[in-house]
Amino acid sequence: MSQASTIIHTDEPPRRATANVTIAQYLIRRLQDYGVDDMFGIPGDYILALYSELEKSPIRMIGCTREDCAGFAADGYARVRGMGAVCVTYCVGGLSICNSIAGAYAEKSPVVVLTGSPGLKERNTGALLHHMVRNFRTQYDVFEKFTIAGTELNDSLTAFSEIDRVLDACDRYKRPVYIELPRDMVNVIPPVAHGYTGAGFQHNQEATDEAIRETVLRLANAQNPVILAGVEMHRFRLQDQLIQLAESTNMPIATTMLGKSVVSERHPLFIGLYEGAIGDAEVTRFVEESDCVLMLGTFLTDINLGIFTAKLDPGRCILATSETLRISHHHFHNVDLKAYLAGLIEAAPTTTTRDTTHLVARTSTETAEEAATELLQTSWMVRQLNQRLDADTIVITDVGDCLFAATELTIHDRSEFLSPAYYTSMGFSIPAALGAATAKPDHRIVVLVGDGAFQMTGQELSTLIRQGHNPIVILLDNHGYGTERYLHEGEWKYNEVAKWNYGELMKVYGRGISHLVSTKAEFNNALDAAWNQTDLPHLIHAKLEENDASQTLRKLAERMSKTVG
Amino acid sequence: MSQASTIIHTDEPPRRATANVTIAQYLIRRLQDYGVDDMFGIPGDYILALYSELEKSPIRMIGCTREDCAGFAADGYARVRGMGAVCVTYCVGGLSICNSIAGAYAEKSPVVVLTGSPGLKERNTGALLHHMVRNFRTQYDVFEKFTIAGTELNDSLTAFSEIDRVLDACDRYKRPVYIELPRDMVNVIPPVAHGYTGAGFQHNQEATDEAIRETVLRLANAQNPVILAGVEMHRFRLQDQLIQLAESTNMPIATTMLGKSVVSERHPLFIGLYEGAIGDAEVTRFVEESDCVLMLGTFLTDINLGIFTAKLDPGRCILATSETLRISHHHFHNVDLKAYLAGLIEAAPTTTTRDTTHLVARTSTETAEEAATELLQTSWMVRQLNQRLDADTIVITDVGDCLFAATELTIHDRSEFLSPAYYTSMGFSIPAALGAATAKPDHRIVVLVGDGAFQMTGQELSTLIRQGHNPIVILLDNHGYGTERYLHEGEWKYNEVAKWNYGELMKVYGRGISHLVSTKAEFNNALDAAWNQTDLPHLIHAKLEENDASQTLRKLAERMSKTVG
Repeated sequence: MSQASTIIHTDEPPRRATANVTIAQYLIRRLQDYGVDDMFGIPGDYILALYSELEKSPIRMIGCTREDCAGFAADGYARVRGMGAVCVTYCVGGLSICNSIAGAYAEKSPVVVLTGSPGLKERNTGALLHHMVRNFRTQYDVFEKFTIAGTELNDSLTAFSEIDRVLDACDRYKRPVYIELPRDMVNVIPPVAHGYTGAGFQHNQEATDEAIRETVLRLANAQNPVILAGVEMHRFRLQDQLIQLAESTNMPIATTMLGKSVVSERHPLFIGLYEGAIGDAEVTRFVEESDCVLMLGTFLTDINLGIFTAKLDPGRCILATSETLRISHHHFHNVDLKAYLAGLIEAAPTTTTRDTTHLVARTSTETAEEAATELLQTSWMVRQLNQRLDADTIVITDVGDCLFAATELTIHDRSEFLSPAYYTSMGFSIPAALGAATAKPDHRIVVLVGDGAFQMTGQELSTLIRQGHNPIVILLDNHGYGTERYLHEGEWKYNEVAKWNYGELMKVYGRGISHLVSTKAEFNNALDAAWNQTDLPHLIHAKLEENDASQTLRKLAERMSKTVG
Repeated sequence: MSQASTIIHTDEPPRRATANVTIAQYLIRRLQDYGVDDMFGIPGDYILALYSELEKSPIRMIGCTREDCAGFAADGYARVRGMGAVCVTYCVGGLSICNSIAGAYAEKSPVVVLTGSPGLKERNTGALLHHMVRNFRTQYDVFEKFTIAGTELNDSLTAFSEIDRVLDACDRYKRPVYIELPRDMVNVIPPVAHGYTGAGFQHNQEATDEAIRETVLRLANAQNPVILAGVEMHRFRLQDQLIQLAESTNMPIATTMLGKSVVSERHPLFIGLYEGAIGDAEVTRFVEESDCVLMLGTFLTDINLGIFTAKLDPGRCILATSETLRISHHHFHNVDLKAYLAGLIEAAPTTTTRDTTHLVARTSTETAEEAATELLQTSWMVRQLNQRLDADTIVITDVGDCLFAATELTIHDRSEFLSPAYYTSMGFSIPAALGAATAKPDHRIVVLVGDGAFQMTGQELSTLIRQGHNPIVILLDNHGYGTERYLHEGEWKYNEVAKWNYGELMKVYGRGISHLVSTKAEFNNALDAAWNQTDLPHLIHAKLEENDASQTLRKLAERMSKTVG
């Protein structure tokens, strides 16, 4: 380590006495410190003791239909609230959330996985315990692959400090963490006095100062700098600083697909989504012609980069994330993103500014003469929705053309758009909506979901309904995995999904209105009704024109089909 | 290795030429050699090229609603057919089936996991590819935890032999295996001539002979020997040999819970399920008083052993499985279970036999005076069902009291009862029914499933319906995770699940009859109607008496609640 390295302690929660506090009680208290007021999961015998402690605590436990849905819900909650948690039993529960936690890892969502396990005293019988796969480490070993920190609370002497360490890592890295609690440790009172001492991060101040100086110099010398903002601005709650930097320097801001909605898309400096060759040509040109692209919290993923069609010369880029800081071809280590951004704002760089008026406020609207009986297209529906969005709406899209089409939505406020835009796991939207609705119950939730994705996790709508939420679910029915039809040439039967009468589900779940629409006029009527009747959930089953595809999907498919094989 | 070890080649499929055969074509051909005529899964871009090859092949591809359901379906298919396969895309697909494959591992079901992955040529871009979690090994590393063999087909020179090796391991160990196929390798023709040379197993003939001699001696000296048959008799298709040994020696047979239905329960030598203190007291006494318990293919799991209430002295036991052979306190290594059993039959041991007439044919039936308006209990329903079972019915139970109550069902034929009795993963039954119905389309499938389990994977009923199957689903609705109510004292809200109008689902899925019943008379009428109308699927939504529990569950709960914490 450099001698300049120092440990900085930030946002330290108050120290509290731990006399007569059980491991479960301490865990619950520390989760509350991070704003976890609700939790998602399914009980099971290895976790029942913790469930009972949770039910007695102020944390609200929300039972889901399936564990993986609980994982997505915790992810959605974490994105909106800053940290989320899922609580499941051993193996049959834990191994059911691998995919949703892997998605949270890939897209940097701070989710705490709590799982029970066989009691330490049960493990010496020589026989196989139910729910066990291979040995007592199997589940822990699996979760090491997609969590940033983990612990098994098998020692009362270290349990409290282990809880601190792991929750700090979750907060620091905005990635999932794993806490395994043997069922006979839940109510153990550790024989130690413990005070939370805060998280330590190896921050290199000299490297940070040097990076800031070089950044300021590069921005000052640039003729047309631009900010490319990524999802970490949202995860690390740096949106205010981002806007402050942009406004003080008058730099235009583009965002990536995964970072969509990190700034209000009505901000005068916002120029649009950058998606390489598959995105808006004007935005692509603007970003790629820039001689200094300041990428803040941006992931370099294939979908963010328009399936590698982005033409961004590293020599003209500054990439600053929570994990790395690269200017041109050299790297600075141990630079805290927040400190870098704060230093940049303080240094107040001067920049040259290009005219962006041709890029701002280009939201397309339908012409009035459009025939109301016309068949439905996803892009058109998204434009209709666009006209209704306000600061009290959260839009959540699933994977599929609804995601690509939704890139055209204008988001009015920050963090109002949730999607699995990088990991692209189908079935994210409905359970994530449960998480978002729980985190912000005063907001209206609008879900855009395809039929294939809905069949995976749509039953979580029943939990939204059970909890009294009133989302608007727009189900885009094209009888199949529509995106794949564009990725691989040919008429393949495997892309078809079962036909369901989705509207009947509201009768299954017991509350709500369903609308079956197949023309533009019908859709607008249904959307009107849903928007105005806020005390009931609505399911709009929209039958799409055959082979409907947004422009974004068509361009994406053209690129991707070359590699599908 | 002992010098006596030899490599034995068994059941060798025919060698065939591989000129101009692609990796995908060879894989498909080899799967067919093992009887895989149908496959389950969901397409995704990293696996589309293989899907297209499958659609052109004789293998029928059955699309499911969710990947984990496809895993359970492949498991059910494997149990009935001898090998099953699931085909999914990278990470979002693969990581969604961890739980179902872990269950197949734990319960020894030979399932082949086929997964796509990014093309080898795509991997050098430096950017993150969508669906990727951490690195290109993440998914493989995870599956190593619950598969018996795995391979990444990244080298055309070894691809064919790797396919052979991995499929052989699946067949040999009756455990899941993992095959990862980068999408640009699917249509590659390896530049090698290849012939299948069969699997090799290190079999120790001298150890086998010695073990057989000692077994014969012990059986001859025993006053009251008994066979305790386990699930491996089914997995390794050794049921005929089991019966042959029992009949030639006149030894009575008990089975474990996981091994239920490995013999026809109408066989005169069958005495019942052995479940320690939670099982039938007569059977428990009979087995535990035996001075020689020959355990064949039996797992020593907590549920099989009645949560460790079994009183089996190892000194009086012979434990022979595919993995181990232990007589009293000494072990024989590298003994093939099939060879051991064959040797035992050939040696024709003489045994002393006890009278078992008091154990056989004790199926209880309801008295006629039972009030028809009485509320429903699971045990009673199981007894009604018992009277209708025939050799053309397959019963599949989910986890919960339906599983415990179903231990009382008399199974008429072998392999007619499927359940996740050891790993006990809720949500197994409906997708496993899809697998069983696909494997044996001429059989009638009866599913017993609780409301909690149904909410997890019930949507797979739509695939059964779509494929033209006509199962009878008996949904036991007690508004919650009923088993857990017995495991942990107190009135906990977390055990409640959402109330659904399940019958309406048949309208969602578009075909079938639903029956809502809450009295015994109504149940019998519904079961009559369902049994007689074989050309439609039936959903019997049975509202249970509050706090209904079978005797088995009550005894189990009493034992387990002591360790829940």
